[in-house]
Amino acid sequence: MTDPTTISPSQTQPSANADLLRKDMSARAKLVESAIDALLPPTTGGDARLIEAMRYATLGGGKRLRGYLAVETASLFGVPEAQSARVGASVEMLHAYSLVHDDLPAMDDDDLRRGQPSTHRKFDEATAILAGDALQTKAFEILADAQTHESANVRIALIAAFAAASGASGMVGGQMIDMEGEGRALPLDEVRHLHALKTGCLIRYSAESGAILGQADADLQRRLRSYGTNIGAAFQIADDVLDATATAEELGKTAGKDEASGKSTFVALLGIDGARAEAERLTKLAIEDLAPFGAKADRLKALAYYVIERRN
Amino acid sequence: MTDPTTISPSQTQPSANADLLRKDMSARAKLVESAIDALLPPTTGGDARLIEAMRYATLGGGKRLRGYLAVETASLFGVPEAQSARVGASVEMLHAYSLVHDDLPAMDDDDLRRGQPSTHRKFDEATAILAGDALQTKAFEILADAQTHESANVRIALIAAFAAASGASGMVGGQMIDMEGEGRALPLDEVRHLHALKTGCLIRYSAESGAILGQADADLQRRLRSYGTNIGAAFQIADDVLDATATAEELGKTAGKDEASGKSTFVALLGIDGARAEAERLTKLAIEDLAPFGAKADRLKALAYYVIERRN
Repeated sequence: MTDPTTISPSQTQPSANADLLRKDMSARAKLVESAIDALLPPTTGGDARLIEAMRYATLGGGKRLRGYLAVETASLFGVPEAQSARVGASVEMLHAYSLVHDDLPAMDDDDLRRGQPSTHRKFDEATAILAGDALQTKAFEILADAQTHESANVRIALIAAFAAASGASGMVGGQMIDMEGEGRALPLDEVRHLHALKTGCLIRYSAESGAILGQADADLQRRLRSYGTNIGAAFQIADDVLDATATAEELGKTAGKDEASGKSTFVALLGIDGARAEAERLTKLAIEDLAPFGAKADRLKALAYYVIERRN
Repeated sequence: MTDPTTISPSQTQPSANADLLRKDMSARAKLVESAIDALLPPTTGGDARLIEAMRYATLGGGKRLRGYLAVETASLFGVPEAQSARVGASVEMLHAYSLVHDDLPAMDDDDLRRGQPSTHRKFDEATAILAGDALQTKAFEILADAQTHESANVRIALIAAFAAASGASGMVGGQMIDMEGEGRALPLDEVRHLHALKTGCLIRYSAESGAILGQADADLQRRLRSYGTNIGAAFQIADDVLDATATAEELGKTAGKDEASGKSTFVALLGIDGARAEAERLTKLAIEDLAPFGAKADRLKALAYYVIERRN
């Protein structure tokens, strides 16, 4: 029987890799944070309240999983961090916009985000709607800029993949299915599908973005897409497990919301142990995807374990 | 003294041009409408309710001023309509998203749009927020596609100009300033500035987009930008005049809202006659911008009058 709160160390990577990952994530979270800070206008560069809300929603914390994936996968191909950090900042801005809108009263009605008041609670609803809108625009604007990559074709490829991952047939489509499914029991297939869209697409894009920036061959690009798909799915299952087992203090947001709102979760469908086993299965697939990269991908392998072991 | 409800015919273009424009606008509105229809997924191609809301918000009417500008300015350079209609559809989707979010209860709280229930009234608030979000994404996705132009550099130039026009330092920034200014008397300069952002930037981009698609030289591109800036400003002044003088039936939306909400309008600051004179001044500047194009630009010249003479 597995430990009820964590996967036992024997099932995971050597702890040396975990330490390596921890340092690396923290360093790259700082890199992405600095890029966001530099890329958003200063509050004197436009409407101060709007810019403040955009900065509030994006700066000051979070794991930066998507930004990390963008920078780390790009590093496999020797892409300069000055470029990949822009892609990482862009995807973090898009992620932040989705959280700002998701937290709105008409949506999930969440007062807390990362242990702080959500953007509409800190400012107001209208400001939160507009800050989210402007963050989405900014994310595309950053990718279009020549500083992101010298080749317009590479920038276009990033923009096309980014839009496909985040629009009606990606993240936003998943949010809609999630909302419509509230209060009804969804079968496992539909739960998988909605999460593949809602959180999976953007995580997959983040992993893929490094291969696009690095102009990787089709096989390596496909492998990073698959890695992203697998850790994205594992991430969501781990999220459901966390919601069911962690405290609000650990999460920095309201805990136990899924059960209270009657959401169809992996935990509800598979049980806590079943959900954990499914997350591990996906993690192993993700690690197999990385085989051709050898030791260069050790941190990405460690990350695949991290997403199912994290406590927040 | 001018007629209180319209500018007298002697001040406008020959009626032959007006007829030409009317036919042309109607034909191109259909072209842009078809492009939007073809570019949005069918309701079987994703979450049906989300796609329905996206279609509801964008299809079935409106003047398509922005789409018309994109197609008409592109035609000055011989750009195929198959390309310019995509740019027109993209800017109309972005415009539609801004209206959907603007109409939300937390923003302008408008129940009517083009004589029909606004999107959140027809569907619900959450669906309207997500449909607006997905329309913005789709607008960028369309521009990134190779069908929009064979050159990735041209597509990147469109995306960069589009993002700059619609984000925090463009349309969304203007919406924010507009909201913050409600109930306070703003000086004329600030009213000009807010409208230059809120509606002006996207109209300017629409006029400029044809020059980008057509790879026009810097002077012609600058002239179309200036034309767009001038008619954009004239358009907003005419909007204020309409709000003060037209009926809800003519407008297809609530009339007299500006005065009721204490908004600082050009009419409040300049009076109806003063506002009309200002709109005419801008129209004449717009027509001067078109000088190098000669008779090829007759319809764009007629359009400059149209924006200040329309009744809805």
